[in-house]
Amino acid sequence: MPEHRGRSIEDDIKERVAISPFHASMGISVMSVREGEVDLRLEARPDHANLHGTVHGGVLATLADTAAGLAVRSATADPGGRHASANLDVQYLASATTGTLFATGRVVKLGRRLAFAEAEVTDGDGTTVARAQVTVALSPPEAAPQ
Amino acid sequence: MPEHRGRSIEDDIKERVAISPFHASMGISVMSVREGEVDLRLEARPDHANLHGTVHGGVLATLADTAAGLAVRSATADPGGRHASANLDVQYLASATTGTLFATGRVVKLGRRLAFAEAEVTDGDGTTVARAQVTVALSPPEAAPQ
Amino acid sequence: MPEHRGRSIEDDIKERVAISPFHASMGISVMSVREGEVDLRLEARPDHANLHGTVHGGVLATLADTAAGLAVRSATADPGGRHASANLDVQYLASATTGTLFATGRVVKLGRRLAFAEAEVTDGDGTTVARAQVTVALSPPEAAPQ
Amino acid sequence: MPEHRGRSIEDDIKERVAISPFHASMGISVMSVREGEVDLRLEARPDHANLHGTVHGGVLATLADTAAGLAVRSATADPGGRHASANLDVQYLASATTGTLFATGRVVKLGRRLAFAEAEVTDGDGTTVARAQVTVALSPPEAAPQ
Repeated sequence: MPEHRGRSIEDDIKERVAISPFHASMGISVMSVREGEVDLRLEARPDHANLHGTVHGGVLATLADTAAGLAVRSATADPGGRHASANLDVQYLASATTGTLFATGRVVKLGRRLAFAEAEVTDGDGTTVARAQVTVALSPPEAAPQ
Repeated sequence: MPEHRGRSIEDDIKERVAISPFHASMGISVMSVREGEVDLRLEARPDHANLHGTVHGGVLATLADTAAGLAVRSATADPGGRHASANLDVQYLASATTGTLFATGRVVKLGRRLAFAEAEVTDGDGTTVARAQVTVALSPPEAAPQ
Repeated sequence: MPEHRGRSIEDDIKERVAISPFHASMGISVMSVREGEVDLRLEARPDHANLHGTVHGGVLATLADTAAGLAVRSATADPGGRHASANLDVQYLASATTGTLFATGRVVKLGRRLAFAEAEVTDGDGTTVARAQVTVALSPPEAAPQ
Repeated sequence: MPEHRGRSIEDDIKERVAISPFHASMGISVMSVREGEVDLRLEARPDHANLHGTVHGGVLATLADTAAGLAVRSATADPGGRHASANLDVQYLASATTGTLFATGRVVKLGRRLAFAEAEVTDGDGTTVARAQVTVALSPPEAAPQ
Protein backbone atom coordinates (compact mmCIF):
# COMPACT_ATOMS: atom_id res chain seq x y z
CA MET A 1 0.00 0.00 0.00
CA PRO A 2 1.53 3.37 -0.97
CA GLU A 3 2.65 5.75 1.75
CA HIS A 4 1.72 9.41 2.02
CA ARG A 5 4.44 11.62 3.48
CA GLY A 6 5.96 8.78 5.48
CA ARG A 7 2.66 7.75 7.05
CA SER A 8 0.63 4.78 6.07
CA ILE A 9 -2.43 5.50 3.97
CA GLU A 10 -4.50 3.88 6.69
CA ASP A 11 -3.38 6.50 9.19
CA ASP A 12 -3.85 9.25 6.63
CA ILE A 13 -7.42 8.18 5.84
CA LYS A 14 -8.38 7.63 9.47
CA GLU A 15 -7.16 11.09 10.35
CA ARG A 16 -8.90 12.75 7.40
CA VAL A 17 -12.25 11.30 8.41
CA ALA A 18 -11.73 12.13 12.08
CA ILE A 19 -11.12 15.83 11.37
CA SER A 20 -13.62 16.23 8.51
CA PRO A 21 -16.55 18.23 9.91
CA PHE A 22 -19.36 16.41 8.10
CA HIS A 23 -17.98 12.93 8.69
CA ALA A 24 -17.50 13.70 12.36
CA SER A 25 -21.02 15.09 12.72
CA MET A 26 -22.45 12.03 10.98
CA GLY A 27 -20.57 9.67 13.26
CA ILE A 28 -18.61 7.96 10.49
CA SER A 29 -15.36 6.27 11.48
CA VAL A 30 -12.81 4.18 9.57
CA MET A 31 -12.47 0.57 10.67
CA SER A 32 -9.78 -0.64 8.29
CA VAL A 33 -8.04 0.25 5.05
CA ARG A 34 -6.56 -2.01 2.43
CA GLU A 35 -5.25 -0.84 -0.93
CA GLY A 36 -8.36 0.01 -2.92
CA GLU A 37 -10.74 -1.08 -0.15
CA VAL A 38 -12.04 0.65 2.96
CA ASP A 39 -14.36 -0.44 5.78
CA LEU A 40 -16.42 2.22 7.56
CA ARG A 41 -18.81 2.26 10.46
CA LEU A 42 -21.63 4.62 11.37
CA GLU A 43 -23.60 4.59 14.58
CA ALA A 44 -27.09 5.42 13.32
CA ARG A 45 -28.69 7.70 15.92
CA PRO A 46 -32.32 8.75 16.32
CA ASP A 47 -31.51 11.96 14.44
CA HIS A 48 -30.49 9.86 11.42
CA ALA A 49 -34.02 8.50 11.13
CA ASN A 50 -37.02 9.65 9.15
CA LEU A 51 -40.62 9.69 10.38
CA HIS A 52 -40.95 5.93 9.94
CA GLY A 53 -38.09 5.36 12.37
CA THR A 54 -35.80 4.00 9.66
CA VAL A 55 -32.47 5.46 8.64
CA HIS A 56 -32.88 8.17 6.00
CA GLY A 57 -31.68 7.31 2.52
CA GLY A 58 -29.43 10.36 2.61
CA VAL A 59 -27.45 8.80 5.45
CA LEU A 60 -26.98 5.59 3.48
CA ALA A 61 -25.99 7.57 0.38
CA THR A 62 -23.48 9.56 2.44
CA LEU A 63 -21.97 6.41 3.89
CA ALA A 64 -21.75 4.71 0.48
CA ASP A 65 -20.27 7.77 -1.23
CA THR A 66 -17.70 8.18 1.54
CA ALA A 67 -16.66 4.52 1.43
CA ALA A 68 -16.25 4.59 -2.35
CA GLY A 69 -14.31 7.87 -2.30
CA LEU A 70 -11.94 6.70 0.42
CA ALA A 71 -11.35 3.43 -1.41
CA VAL A 72 -10.19 5.47 -4.39
CA ARG A 73 -7.95 7.54 -2.12
CA SER A 74 -6.44 4.37 -0.64
CA ALA A 75 -5.38 3.26 -4.11
CA THR A 76 -3.79 6.44 -5.39
CA ALA A 77 -0.23 7.40 -4.65
CA ASP A 78 -0.88 11.12 -4.88
CA PRO A 79 -1.62 12.52 -1.45
CA GLY A 80 -2.22 16.07 -2.68
CA GLY A 81 -4.65 15.12 -5.42
CA ARG A 82 -8.32 16.03 -5.25
CA HIS A 83 -11.03 13.40 -5.63
CA ALA A 84 -14.60 14.44 -6.23
CA SER A 85 -17.58 12.23 -6.92
CA ALA A 86 -19.01 13.02 -10.34
CA ASN A 87 -21.82 10.48 -10.24
CA LEU A 88 -23.41 8.46 -7.46
CA ASP A 89 -25.99 5.74 -8.09
CA VAL A 90 -27.58 4.12 -5.05
CA GLN A 91 -29.88 1.10 -4.90
CA TYR A 92 -31.94 0.98 -1.69
CA LEU A 93 -32.49 -2.72 -1.00
CA ALA A 94 -33.97 -2.71 2.49
CA SER A 95 -34.79 -0.26 5.23
CA ALA A 96 -32.32 0.03 8.09
CA THR A 97 -33.16 0.68 11.69
CA THR A 98 -30.94 2.74 13.92
CA GLY A 99 -27.90 1.01 15.37
CA THR A 100 -24.55 0.17 13.85
CA LEU A 101 -24.18 0.28 10.08
CA PHE A 102 -21.15 -0.89 8.14
CA ALA A 103 -19.93 0.06 4.68
CA THR A 104 -17.24 -1.33 2.45
CA GLY A 105 -15.96 0.66 -0.52
CA ARG A 106 -13.92 -0.91 -3.32
CA VAL A 107 -12.12 0.46 -6.35
CA VAL A 108 -13.31 -1.24 -9.51
CA LYS A 109 -11.10 0.61 -11.99
CA LEU A 110 -8.53 3.29 -11.36
CA GLY A 111 -7.78 5.45 -14.37
CA ARG A 112 -5.67 8.54 -14.70
CA ARG A 113 -8.55 10.99 -14.56
CA LEU A 114 -11.54 8.87 -13.55
CA ALA A 115 -11.97 6.12 -11.02
CA PHE A 116 -14.90 3.75 -10.74
CA ALA A 117 -15.82 2.38 -7.34
CA GLU A 118 -18.61 0.53 -5.60
CA ALA A 119 -19.89 0.42 -2.05
CA GLU A 120 -22.12 -1.82 0.02
CA VAL A 121 -23.88 -0.83 3.23
CA THR A 122 -24.96 -3.51 5.69
CA ASP A 123 -26.77 -3.34 8.99
CA GLY A 124 -25.79 -5.01 12.25
CA ASP A 125 -27.45 -8.27 11.16
CA GLY A 126 -25.39 -8.42 7.98
CA THR A 127 -28.32 -7.52 5.73
CA THR A 128 -27.33 -5.43 2.73
CA VAL A 129 -29.41 -2.27 2.90
CA ALA A 130 -27.85 -0.26 0.07
CA ARG A 131 -25.38 -0.61 -2.77
CA ALA A 132 -23.78 2.09 -4.88
CA GLN A 133 -21.77 2.70 -8.02
CA VAL A 134 -19.63 5.83 -7.85
CA THR A 135 -17.68 7.61 -10.59
CA VAL A 136 -14.90 9.75 -9.13
CA ALA A 137 -13.05 12.55 -10.94
CA LEU A 138 -9.33 12.71 -10.08
CA SER A 139 -7.39 15.96 -10.29
CA PRO A 140 -3.65 16.37 -9.85
CA PRO A 141 -2.67 18.68 -6.98
CA GLU A 142 -1.99 21.73 -9.15
CA ALA A 143 -4.96 21.36 -11.45
CA ALA A 144 -8.00 23.54 -11.47
CA PRO A 145 -11.15 21.61 -10.61
CA GLN A 146 -13.15 20.21 -13.50
CA MET B 1 -53.92 19.79 -5.18
CA PRO B 2 -55.35 16.87 -3.19
CA GLU B 3 -56.04 17.28 0.51
CA HIS B 4 -54.92 14.95 3.28
CA ARG B 5 -57.36 14.66 6.17
CA GLY B 6 -58.79 18.13 5.62
CA ARG B 7 -55.42 19.82 5.55
CA SER B 8 -53.64 21.02 2.48
CA ILE B 9 -50.79 18.86 1.27
CA GLU B 10 -48.52 21.88 1.68
CA ASP B 11 -49.25 21.97 5.43
CA ASP B 12 -48.89 18.20 5.66
CA ILE B 13 -45.51 18.19 3.95
CA LYS B 14 -44.19 21.18 5.88
CA GLU B 15 -45.12 19.53 9.15
CA ARG B 16 -43.64 16.17 8.19
CA VAL B 17 -40.29 17.73 7.42
CA ALA B 18 -40.35 19.88 10.56
CA ILE B 19 -40.85 16.89 12.86
CA SER B 20 -38.66 14.40 10.96
CA PRO B 21 -35.49 13.94 13.04
CA PHE B 22 -33.00 13.71 10.18
CA HIS B 23 -34.50 16.56 8.19
CA ALA B 24 -34.53 18.76 11.25
CA SER B 25 -30.94 17.92 12.14
CA MET B 26 -29.84 18.62 8.56
CA GLY B 27 -31.56 21.99 8.56
CA ILE B 28 -33.91 21.22 5.68
CA SER B 29 -37.12 23.25 5.46
CA VAL B 30 -39.95 23.38 2.95
CA MET B 31 -40.35 26.66 1.08
CA SER B 32 -43.33 25.86 -1.12
CA VAL B 33 -45.37 22.97 -2.44
CA ARG B 34 -47.25 22.66 -5.70
CA GLU B 35 -48.88 19.47 -6.97
CA GLY B 36 -45.96 17.28 -8.01
CA GLU B 37 -43.35 19.92 -7.23
CA VAL B 38 -41.63 20.97 -4.01
CA ASP B 39 -39.06 23.67 -3.17
CA LEU B 40 -36.70 23.08 -0.25
CA ARG B 41 -34.00 25.07 1.46
CA LEU B 42 -30.98 23.99 3.50
CA GLU B 43 -28.67 26.28 5.42
CA ALA B 44 -25.29 24.61 4.80
CA ARG B 45 -23.31 24.89 8.03
CA PRO B 46 -19.61 24.29 8.68
CA ASP B 47 -20.47 20.78 9.84
CA HIS B 48 -21.91 20.04 6.39
CA ALA B 49 -18.51 20.58 4.82
CA ASN B 50 -15.69 18.21 4.01
CA LEU B 51 -11.98 18.91 4.46
CA HIS B 52 -11.88 21.11 1.37
CA GLY B 53 -14.50 23.40 2.90
CA THR B 54 -17.13 22.47 0.34
CA VAL B 55 -20.48 20.89 1.09
CA HIS B 56 -20.23 17.09 1.24
CA GLY B 57 -21.85 15.19 -1.60
CA GLY B 58 -23.93 13.29 0.95
CA VAL B 59 -25.66 16.53 1.94
CA LEU B 60 -26.49 17.28 -1.69
CA ALA B 61 -27.72 13.71 -2.20
CA THR B 62 -29.88 14.01 0.91
CA LEU B 63 -31.38 17.28 -0.26
CA ALA B 64 -32.06 15.94 -3.76
CA ASP B 65 -33.57 12.68 -2.50
CA THR B 66 -35.79 14.56 -0.06
CA ALA B 67 -37.00 17.00 -2.71
CA ALA B 68 -37.83 14.21 -5.15
CA GLY B 69 -39.58 12.12 -2.50
CA LEU B 70 -41.71 15.01 -1.26
CA ALA B 71 -42.64 15.93 -4.83
CA VAL B 72 -44.03 12.41 -5.19
CA ARG B 73 -45.89 12.78 -1.91
CA SER B 74 -47.39 16.07 -3.07
CA ALA B 75 -48.87 14.34 -6.10
CA THR B 76 -50.45 11.32 -4.46
CA ALA B 77 -53.86 11.33 -2.89
CA ASP B 78 -53.05 8.64 -0.38
CA PRO B 79 -51.87 10.17 2.86
CA GLY B 80 -51.24 6.87 4.58
CA GLY B 81 -49.18 5.39 1.78
CA ARG B 82 -45.49 4.70 2.17
CA HIS B 83 -42.96 6.07 -0.30
CA ALA B 84 -39.42 4.77 -0.33
CA SER B 85 -36.65 5.61 -2.75
CA ALA B 86 -35.58 2.50 -4.63
CA ASN B 87 -32.89 4.15 -6.74
CA LEU B 88 -31.12 7.50 -6.53
CA ASP B 89 -28.74 8.74 -9.24
CA VAL B 90 -26.93 12.01 -8.55
CA GLN B 91 -24.76 14.03 -10.92
CA TYR B 92 -22.38 16.38 -9.09
CA LEU B 93 -21.94 19.38 -11.38
CA ALA B 94 -20.07 21.84 -9.20
CA SER B 95 -18.83 22.15 -5.66
CA ALA B 96 -20.96 24.18 -3.25
CA THR B 97 -19.68 26.34 -0.46
CA THR B 98 -21.54 26.68 2.79
CA GLY B 99 -24.49 29.05 2.85
CA THR B 100 -28.03 28.67 1.58
CA LEU B 101 -28.81 25.85 -0.83
CA PHE B 102 -32.08 25.38 -2.66
CA ALA B 103 -33.62 22.25 -4.15
CA THR B 104 -36.62 21.69 -6.38
CA GLY B 105 -38.12 18.23 -6.77
CA ARG B 106 -40.54 17.35 -9.57
CA VAL B 107 -42.58 14.28 -10.40
CA VAL B 108 -41.84 13.07 -13.90
CA LYS B 109 -44.21 10.10 -13.96
CA LEU B 110 -46.57 8.87 -11.29
CA GLY B 111 -47.51 5.23 -11.65
CA ARG B 112 -49.51 2.99 -9.39
CA ARG B 113 -46.53 1.30 -7.79
CA LEU B 114 -43.56 3.32 -8.99
CA ALA B 115 -42.99 7.02 -9.36
CA PHE B 116 -40.14 8.70 -11.25
CA ALA B 117 -38.94 12.08 -10.07
CA GLU B 118 -36.06 14.48 -10.56
CA ALA B 119 -34.41 17.10 -8.40
CA GLU B 120 -32.07 20.02 -8.90
CA VAL B 121 -29.91 21.62 -6.21
CA THR B 122 -28.69 25.19 -6.65
CA ASP B 123 -26.53 27.40 -4.49
CA GLY B 124 -27.23 30.98 -3.43
CA ASP B 125 -25.86 32.31 -6.74
CA GLY B 126 -28.26 30.18 -8.75
CA THR B 127 -25.55 27.78 -9.92
CA THR B 128 -26.77 24.20 -10.30
CA VAL B 129 -24.54 22.08 -8.10
CA ALA B 130 -26.30 18.72 -8.35
CA ARG B 131 -29.09 16.98 -10.25
CA ALA B 132 -30.77 13.70 -9.51
CA GLN B 133 -33.07 11.08 -10.94
CA VAL B 134 -35.05 9.18 -8.30
CA THR B 135 -37.19 6.06 -8.61
CA VAL B 136 -39.69 5.81 -5.77
CA ALA B 137 -41.59 2.68 -4.72
CA LEU B 138 -45.17 3.37 -3.61
CA SER B 139 -46.95 1.11 -1.15
CA PRO B 140 -50.59 1.31 -0.15
CA PRO B 141 -51.14 1.88 3.58
CA GLU B 142 -51.90 -1.73 4.42
CA ALA B 143 -49.27 -3.34 2.23
CA ALA B 144 -46.17 -5.05 3.42
CA PRO B 145 -43.03 -3.27 2.29
CA GLN B 146 -41.47 -4.40 -0.99
CA MET C 1 -34.03 -23.95 -9.47
CA PRO C 2 -37.78 -23.56 -10.03
CA GLU C 3 -39.40 -25.12 -13.06
CA HIS C 4 -41.70 -23.38 -15.51
CA ARG C 5 -44.41 -25.62 -16.96
CA GLY C 6 -42.32 -28.75 -16.59
CA ARG C 7 -39.29 -27.31 -18.34
CA SER C 8 -36.19 -26.11 -16.61
CA ILE C 9 -35.77 -22.38 -16.30
CA GLU C 10 -32.56 -22.73 -18.24
CA ASP C 11 -34.44 -24.09 -21.25
CA ASP C 12 -37.14 -21.47 -20.83
CA ILE C 13 -34.63 -18.62 -20.77
CA LYS C 14 -32.56 -19.95 -23.64
CA GLU C 15 -35.66 -20.24 -25.78
CA ARG C 16 -36.94 -16.79 -24.87
CA VAL C 17 -33.70 -15.17 -25.95
CA ALA C 18 -33.48 -17.25 -29.12
CA ILE C 19 -36.93 -16.15 -30.33
CA SER C 20 -36.80 -12.56 -29.09
CA PRO C 21 -36.35 -10.36 -32.16
CA PHE C 22 -34.02 -7.78 -30.65
CA HIS C 23 -31.85 -10.30 -28.84
CA ALA C 24 -31.53 -12.36 -31.99
CA SER C 25 -30.64 -9.35 -34.12
CA MET C 26 -28.03 -8.27 -31.58
CA GLY C 27 -26.45 -11.72 -31.54
CA ILE C 28 -27.03 -12.36 -27.84
CA SER C 29 -27.12 -15.98 -26.71
CA VAL C 30 -27.46 -17.65 -23.30
CA MET C 31 -24.47 -19.66 -22.16
CA SER C 32 -25.69 -20.89 -18.80
CA VAL C 33 -28.33 -20.26 -16.16
CA ARG C 34 -28.16 -20.76 -12.43
CA GLU C 35 -30.84 -19.64 -9.99
CA GLY C 36 -30.47 -15.89 -9.83
CA GLU C 37 -27.48 -15.81 -12.17
CA VAL C 38 -27.16 -15.89 -15.96
CA ASP C 39 -24.18 -15.90 -18.34
CA LEU C 40 -24.61 -14.38 -21.80
CA ARG C 41 -22.46 -14.02 -24.85
CA LEU C 42 -22.52 -11.53 -27.72
CA GLU C 43 -20.44 -11.69 -30.86
CA ALA C 44 -19.62 -8.01 -31.41
CA ARG C 45 -19.74 -7.38 -35.15
CA PRO C 46 -18.51 -4.40 -37.16
CA ASP C 47 -22.05 -3.00 -37.12
CA HIS C 48 -21.89 -2.90 -33.30
CA ALA C 49 -19.03 -0.40 -33.46
CA ASN C 50 -18.95 3.37 -33.45
CA LEU C 51 -16.68 5.56 -35.57
CA HIS C 52 -13.70 4.85 -33.32
CA GLY C 53 -14.01 1.13 -34.05
CA THR C 54 -15.01 0.31 -30.48
CA VAL C 55 -18.26 -1.30 -29.42
CA HIS C 56 -20.98 1.30 -28.87
CA GLY C 57 -22.05 1.92 -25.30
CA GLY C 58 -25.60 1.09 -26.27
CA VAL C 59 -24.56 -2.48 -27.08
CA LEU C 60 -22.91 -2.83 -23.68
CA ALA C 61 -25.96 -1.33 -21.98
CA THR C 62 -28.20 -3.75 -23.86
CA LEU C 63 -26.09 -6.72 -22.86
CA ALA C 64 -25.95 -5.64 -19.21
CA ASP C 65 -29.66 -4.91 -19.02
CA THR C 66 -30.49 -8.26 -20.62
CA ALA C 67 -28.21 -10.19 -18.27
CA ALA C 68 -29.67 -8.50 -15.19
CA GLY C 69 -33.24 -8.98 -16.36
CA LEU C 70 -32.76 -12.67 -17.15
CA ALA C 71 -31.07 -13.22 -13.78
CA VAL C 72 -34.24 -11.89 -12.16
CA ARG C 73 -36.35 -14.18 -14.33
CA SER C 74 -34.21 -17.18 -13.35
CA ALA C 75 -34.98 -16.53 -9.69
CA THR C 76 -38.73 -16.09 -9.86
CA ALA C 77 -41.15 -18.94 -9.82
CA ASP C 78 -43.79 -17.11 -11.79
CA PRO C 79 -43.41 -17.89 -15.48
CA GLY C 80 -46.26 -15.64 -16.55
CA GLY C 81 -45.08 -12.59 -14.67
CA ARG C 82 -43.81 -9.52 -16.43
CA HIS C 83 -40.40 -8.04 -15.62
CA ALA C 84 -39.50 -4.58 -16.83
CA SER C 85 -36.39 -2.58 -16.05
CA ALA C 86 -37.33 0.59 -14.22
CA ASN C 87 -33.80 1.95 -13.83
CA LEU C 88 -30.49 1.06 -15.44
CA ASP C 89 -27.18 2.56 -14.32
CA VAL C 90 -24.11 1.66 -16.36
CA GLN C 91 -20.47 2.43 -15.61
CA TYR C 92 -18.26 2.30 -18.70
CA LEU C 93 -14.85 1.17 -17.49
CA ALA C 94 -12.98 0.51 -20.70
CA SER C 95 -13.59 0.49 -24.42
CA ALA C 96 -14.25 -2.87 -26.04
CA THR C 97 -13.18 -3.90 -29.50
CA THR C 98 -15.27 -6.17 -31.65
CA GLY C 99 -15.09 -9.87 -30.93
CA THR C 100 -16.71 -11.97 -28.24
CA LEU C 101 -18.16 -10.23 -25.20
CA PHE C 102 -19.46 -11.96 -22.09
CA ALA C 103 -21.93 -10.78 -19.50
CA THR C 104 -23.01 -12.16 -16.16
CA GLY C 105 -26.16 -10.96 -14.45
CA ARG C 106 -26.91 -11.60 -10.79
CA VAL C 107 -29.89 -10.97 -8.57
CA VAL C 108 -28.91 -8.92 -5.54
CA LYS C 109 -32.31 -8.74 -3.86
CA LEU C 110 -35.58 -10.23 -4.97
CA GLY C 111 -38.61 -8.50 -3.51
CA ARG C 112 -42.27 -9.00 -4.20
CA ARG C 113 -42.63 -6.04 -6.52
CA LEU C 114 -39.06 -4.91 -7.13
CA ALA C 115 -35.87 -6.80 -7.81
CA PHE C 116 -32.36 -5.40 -7.71
CA ALA C 117 -29.72 -6.92 -9.94
CA GLU C 118 -26.24 -6.24 -11.21
CA ALA C 119 -24.35 -7.15 -14.36
CA GLU C 120 -20.76 -7.21 -15.50
CA VAL C 121 -19.59 -7.21 -19.11
CA THR C 122 -16.13 -8.52 -19.98
CA ASP C 123 -14.27 -8.81 -23.25
CA GLY C 124 -12.46 -11.83 -24.61
CA ASP C 125 -9.36 -11.00 -22.55
CA GLY C 126 -11.33 -10.99 -19.31
CA THR C 127 -11.17 -7.20 -18.95
CA THR C 128 -14.30 -5.73 -17.38
CA VAL C 129 -15.61 -3.16 -19.83
CA ALA C 130 -18.92 -2.24 -18.17
CA ARG C 131 -20.85 -2.78 -14.98
CA ALA C 132 -24.49 -2.06 -14.23
CA GLN C 133 -27.01 -1.79 -11.45
CA VAL C 134 -30.57 -2.55 -12.55
CA THR C 135 -33.85 -2.05 -10.74
CA VAL C 136 -36.57 -4.32 -12.13
CA ALA C 137 -40.31 -3.92 -11.62
CA LEU C 138 -42.16 -7.23 -11.21
CA SER C 139 -45.80 -7.61 -12.16
CA PRO C 140 -47.99 -10.62 -11.56
CA PRO C 141 -49.45 -12.16 -14.72
CA GLU C 142 -52.86 -10.56 -14.36
CA ALA C 143 -51.75 -7.13 -13.23
CA ALA C 144 -51.88 -4.00 -15.26
CA PRO C 145 -48.44 -2.59 -15.98
CA GLN C 146 -47.10 0.02 -13.54
CA MET D 1 -22.40 27.47 -32.86
CA PRO D 2 -18.71 26.62 -33.33
CA GLU D 3 -17.48 25.38 -36.68
CA HIS D 4 -15.40 22.26 -37.29
CA ARG D 5 -12.95 22.58 -40.18
CA GLY D 6 -15.12 25.09 -42.03
CA ARG D 7 -18.28 22.99 -41.78
CA SER D 8 -21.12 23.61 -39.43
CA ILE D 9 -21.31 21.32 -36.45
CA GLU D 10 -24.76 20.30 -37.64
CA ASP D 11 -23.27 18.92 -40.86
CA ASP D 12 -20.43 17.31 -38.96
CA ILE D 13 -22.77 15.55 -36.55
CA LYS D 14 -25.21 14.45 -39.23
CA GLU D 15 -22.38 12.92 -41.22
CA ARG D 16 -20.84 11.18 -38.23
CA VAL D 17 -24.10 9.45 -37.40
CA ALA D 18 -24.76 8.54 -41.02
CA ILE D 19 -21.42 6.75 -41.41
CA SER D 20 -21.24 5.24 -37.91
CA PRO D 21 -21.90 1.50 -38.30
CA PHE D 22 -23.95 0.98 -35.14
CA HIS D 23 -26.03 4.12 -35.54
CA ALA D 24 -26.77 3.22 -39.14
CA SER D 25 -27.74 -0.35 -38.26
CA MET D 26 -30.01 0.92 -35.48
CA GLY D 27 -31.73 3.36 -37.80
CA ILE D 28 -30.79 6.49 -35.86
CA SER D 29 -30.74 9.76 -37.76
CA VAL D 30 -30.13 13.37 -36.74
CA MET D 31 -33.07 15.72 -37.13
CA SER D 32 -31.55 18.98 -35.90
CA VAL D 33 -28.60 20.34 -33.96
CA ARG D 34 -28.38 23.44 -31.81
CA GLU D 35 -25.39 24.34 -29.64
CA GLY D 36 -25.57 21.91 -26.75
CA GLU D 37 -28.79 20.28 -27.94
CA VAL D 38 -29.52 17.59 -30.50
CA ASP D 39 -32.74 15.98 -31.78
CA LEU D 40 -32.63 12.40 -33.03
CA ARG D 41 -35.09 10.01 -34.59
CA LEU D 42 -35.22 6.23 -34.68
CA GLU D 43 -37.63 4.13 -36.66
CA ALA D 44 -38.32 1.27 -34.25
CA ARG D 45 -38.59 -1.90 -36.31
CA PRO D 46 -39.89 -5.34 -35.35
CA ASP D 47 -36.30 -6.43 -34.68
CA HIS D 48 -36.04 -3.69 -32.01
CA ALA D 49 -38.78 -5.37 -30.00
CA ASN D 50 -38.65 -7.90 -27.20
CA LEU D 51 -41.03 -10.82 -26.76
CA HIS D 52 -43.79 -8.56 -25.46
CA GLY D 53 -43.73 -6.59 -28.69
CA THR D 54 -42.40 -3.47 -27.02
CA VAL D 55 -39.14 -1.75 -27.84
CA HIS D 56 -36.23 -3.25 -25.87
CA GLY D 57 -34.75 -1.09 -23.14
CA GLY D 58 -31.37 -1.41 -24.79
CA VAL D 59 -32.67 0.45 -27.83
CA LEU D 60 -33.97 3.27 -25.64
CA ALA D 61 -30.67 3.36 -23.73
CA THR D 62 -28.76 3.51 -27.01
CA LEU D 63 -30.90 6.36 -28.29
CA ALA D 64 -30.59 8.32 -25.03
CA ASP D 65 -26.84 7.79 -24.78
CA THR D 66 -26.35 8.83 -28.39
CA ALA D 67 -28.45 11.98 -27.98
CA ALA D 68 -26.59 13.02 -24.84
CA GLY D 69 -23.18 12.34 -26.37
CA LEU D 70 -23.94 14.27 -29.55
CA ALA D 71 -25.27 17.19 -27.51
CA VAL D 72 -21.88 17.35 -25.79
CA ARG D 73 -20.14 17.20 -29.16
CA SER D 74 -22.30 20.04 -30.47
CA ALA D 75 -21.12 22.25 -27.62
CA THR D 76 -17.38 21.66 -27.84
CA ALA D 77 -15.08 23.52 -30.17
CA ASP D 78 -12.60 20.68 -30.43
CA PRO D 79 -13.42 18.53 -33.45
CA GLY D 80 -10.60 16.07 -32.81
CA GLY D 81 -11.44 15.46 -29.18
CA ARG D 82 -12.75 12.13 -27.94
CA HIS D 83 -15.94 11.88 -25.96
CA ALA D 84 -16.82 8.70 -24.14
CA SER D 85 -19.72 8.07 -21.81
CA ALA D 86 -18.45 7.20 -18.35
CA ASN D 87 -21.83 6.74 -16.73
CA LEU D 88 -25.34 6.31 -18.09
CA ASP D 89 -28.43 6.27 -15.88
CA VAL D 90 -31.75 5.53 -17.56
CA GLN D 91 -35.24 5.76 -16.09
CA TYR D 92 -37.77 3.67 -18.02
CA LEU D 93 -41.09 5.51 -17.65
CA ALA D 94 -43.32 3.67 -20.09
CA SER D 95 -43.12 0.93 -22.67
CA ALA D 96 -42.82 1.98 -26.29
CA THR D 97 -44.32 0.21 -29.24
CA THR D 98 -42.59 0.06 -32.58
CA GLY D 99 -42.85 3.11 -34.81
CA THR D 100 -41.07 6.44 -34.70
CA LEU D 101 -39.20 7.40 -31.55
CA PHE D 102 -37.65 10.79 -30.89
CA ALA D 103 -34.84 11.78 -28.55
CA THR D 104 -33.50 15.13 -27.44
CA GLY D 105 -30.11 15.40 -25.76
CA ARG D 106 -29.00 18.50 -23.85
CA VAL D 107 -25.76 19.54 -22.22
CA VAL D 108 -26.30 20.43 -18.59
CA LYS D 109 -22.73 21.37 -17.70
CA LEU D 110 -19.66 21.41 -19.91
CA GLY D 111 -16.41 21.19 -17.98
CA ARG D 112 -12.87 20.84 -19.22
CA ARG D 113 -12.64 17.11 -18.63
CA LEU D 114 -16.20 16.05 -17.84
CA ALA D 115 -19.53 16.99 -19.32
CA PHE D 116 -22.95 16.28 -17.84
CA ALA D 117 -25.87 15.80 -20.17
CA GLU D 118 -29.44 14.57 -20.15
CA ALA D 119 -31.71 12.99 -22.72
CA GLU D 120 -35.40 12.34 -23.13
CA VAL D 121 -36.97 9.75 -25.42
CA THR D 122 -40.56 10.18 -26.58
CA ASP D 123 -42.77 8.06 -28.77
CA GLY D 124 -44.87 9.19 -31.71
CA ASP D 125 -47.68 10.29 -29.38
CA GLY D 126 -45.36 12.57 -27.42
CA THR D 127 -45.29 10.28 -24.37
CA THR D 128 -41.96 10.28 -22.57
CA VAL D 129 -40.80 6.67 -22.49
CA ALA D 130 -37.29 7.11 -21.06
CA ARG D 131 -35.04 9.74 -19.54
CA ALA D 132 -31.33 9.61 -18.90
CA GLN D 133 -28.49 11.34 -17.10
CA VAL D 134 -25.13 10.88 -18.80
CA THR D 135 -21.62 11.72 -17.59
CA VAL D 136 -19.20 12.10 -20.49
CA ALA D 137 -15.40 12.03 -20.25
CA LEU D 138 -13.70 14.49 -22.62
CA SER D 139 -10.18 13.88 -23.91
CA PRO D 140 -8.09 16.30 -25.97
CA PRO D 141 -7.07 14.95 -29.39
CA GLU D 142 -3.55 13.97 -28.35
CA ALA D 143 -4.38 12.54 -24.95
CA ALA D 144 -4.30 8.93 -24.04
CA PRO D 145 -7.74 7.60 -23.10
CA GLN D 146 -8.71 7.76 -19.43
